[in-house]
Amino acid sequence: MVTIDDIKQAQSLIRPFIKQTPVVSSSLLNSWLGHEIFFKAECLQTTGAFKLRGACHFLAQLKKQKQLPKRIVANSSGNHAQAVAYAGRLFKVPVEIFSAANISPIKAAATQYYGAKLSTFETRVMADEAVQRASQEQDTVWIPPFNHPYIIAGQGTAALEALKQCEDIDMLATPCGGGGLLSGSIVAARASKRDLRVIGAEPLAANDAAQSLRQGSIVSLKSTPTTLADGAATPSIGEHTFEIIKQVNAFYEVNETDIAYWTQWLQHLLKLHIEPTCAMTMQAVVNELAASKNRGQPEKQRVMVIISGGNISQQSMHTIWQSDHLSTVPSLELAK
Amino acid sequence: MVTIDDIKQAQSLIRPFIKQTPVVSSSLLNSWLGHEIFFKAECLQTTGAFKLRGACHFLAQLKKQKQLPKRIVANSSGNHAQAVAYAGRLFKVPVEIFSAANISPIKAAATQYYGAKLSTFETRVMADEAVQRASQEQDTVWIPPFNHPYIIAGQGTAALEALKQCEDIDMLATPCGGGGLLSGSIVAARASKRDLRVIGAEPLAANDAAQSLRQGSIVSLKSTPTTLADGAATPSIGEHTFEIIKQVNAFYEVNETDIAYWTQWLQHLLKLHIEPTCAMTMQAVVNELAASKNRGQPEKQRVMVIISGGNISQQSMHTIWQSDHLSTVPSLELAK
Repeated sequence: MVTIDDIKQAQSLIRPFIKQTPVVSSSLLNSWLGHEIFFKAECLQTTGAFKLRGACHFLAQLKKQKQLPKRIVANSSGNHAQAVAYAGRLFKVPVEIFSAANISPIKAAATQYYGAKLSTFETRVMADEAVQRASQEQDTVWIPPFNHPYIIAGQGTAALEALKQCEDIDMLATPCGGGGLLSGSIVAARASKRDLRVIGAEPLAANDAAQSLRQGSIVSLKSTPTTLADGAATPSIGEHTFEIIKQVNAFYEVNETDIAYWTQWLQHLLKLHIEPTCAMTMQAVVNELAASKNRGQPEKQRVMVIISGGNISQQSMHTIWQSDHLSTVPSLELAK
Repeated sequence: MVTIDDIKQAQSLIRPFIKQTPVVSSSLLNSWLGHEIFFKAECLQTTGAFKLRGACHFLAQLKKQKQLPKRIVANSSGNHAQAVAYAGRLFKVPVEIFSAANISPIKAAATQYYGAKLSTFETRVMADEAVQRASQEQDTVWIPPFNHPYIIAGQGTAALEALKQCEDIDMLATPCGGGGLLSGSIVAARASKRDLRVIGAEPLAANDAAQSLRQGSIVSLKSTPTTLADGAATPSIGEHTFEIIKQVNAFYEVNETDIAYWTQWLQHLLKLHIEPTCAMTMQAVVNELAASKNRGQPEKQRVMVIISGGNISQQSMHTIWQSDHLSTVPSLELAK
């Protein structure tokens, strides 16, 4: 099990490679909700997402153990690919990314700009099979996207940093895909303040973690989910992340309309290019603030939301901005 | 004529009220263009635009002269309205904003949140007439959007600050609406480095400044222009701003497709919610970098772009993201 000491060690190992991203807020949003919401802007992290923390930590650990391989492989068509490509360059290890051929041109360009070789396959399944074969070759290491103690500890540094930048937080909220960010955040939060509540958010259309929590064992989605929150479209969480995520205080499933609503509002209010995956978390925050009203929580809670990334395709941006959500001002009445 | 001393005085007067916004850059963009482009992120300024600088300076000057009025009026349905509303609250003077009834609900909400009274009129012309009448009432002062030495000096502080944050800049680029930002930037640039080139950008669909520069006298547009770059849709520049803008080194008109192209790319690369009005400036930068290739300029120029704001309506966002511009990577070959 990952401990706070693991996260602290990760923090000191990755410090040379990682930006301390700012914490921002919106006085308008705070006045509308009657609480103080802080946002840890990991969309401003190098490569545009928190994922670099886990990837750097994984390689920093191997380096510390003098076990850096001659080749790194990873399968992803999203933020993890760019993070591994960039981290590989930092540690001077060649990287090969295995991806489905439908990887977006901008993500392909960024991955290659960071110096990685990009191998594309007809389908995602074929890419996954290829990375598995490649990882068994000599001197080759596969960097998993979430289900590994090094990755969880690395992602946990975002919450650790945020809780130091902004003290006395009552609630910490993150999105949940494979669960690396949420599980790392739970460990960081528990060590920071005993009664700090941690909540998670997942797209209703890809609710494997919610199902897993209800059932008490890991549930895998049978088909590829379609959701604006593509960073949380993973078919299942992992054993390492699930063990920790069981401790989450509340977990909410968010529909596509609400994901678009909060993406519009957060982009508008914070002036940041924020992914739907993390904007979604605000619906969970509003649900939880409304639900906890009569539960003896502070009248004006201080909430930290981890803005996990800012890599969005043109197609998603077009969908997000199709309807006018800015005509309905945020309030706790939006709670579900 | 506004001087560098006026801008320096403005800077010291508004310091308590203004954020020092960060300067950001994209290593990907720099590698694609072969030059270093820096962006002064005034979209992160309070109220979401540089406009607060001019409005605060105007009121700080009145306060210094013990001439703060009992009421401030302004006509705007854009960034100037929010800036004046916010500045009025800072200086504890009631503000009334006169606007056309089609003001966007989010801008209306923000203006009122900052404590201003919002009066709406059937048309923009009726709002302008009403503000003129109101400004003649006792103890009432009208804060103009651009054509005033205090406003020009205030807006010039953005460039002054940027050129201090990032030295040895070869080219400074800003958008041009009424010309407050461009003229203030020209004065700041001239005082910073003799051969620092300043370039301006304007929507082709609202090219009154370009026409004015060609003709040598101020040209007013006859009809209300339709452009994504709504912050630069002013029908004419002013006498104060025009006198200074005559010194601009180059001035480019940008079509709507290129405005959308650069808005998509800057939002994506910088992870900031950037207005079309300022993203447009990148087309001028690319044009000028390509044109100056054989003119003895440094091989790798350092360019500062003033990102003027980040207030964008849902309708504009929807239009901006309609086509996929991210499939065409930026390069100097896009020069026109």
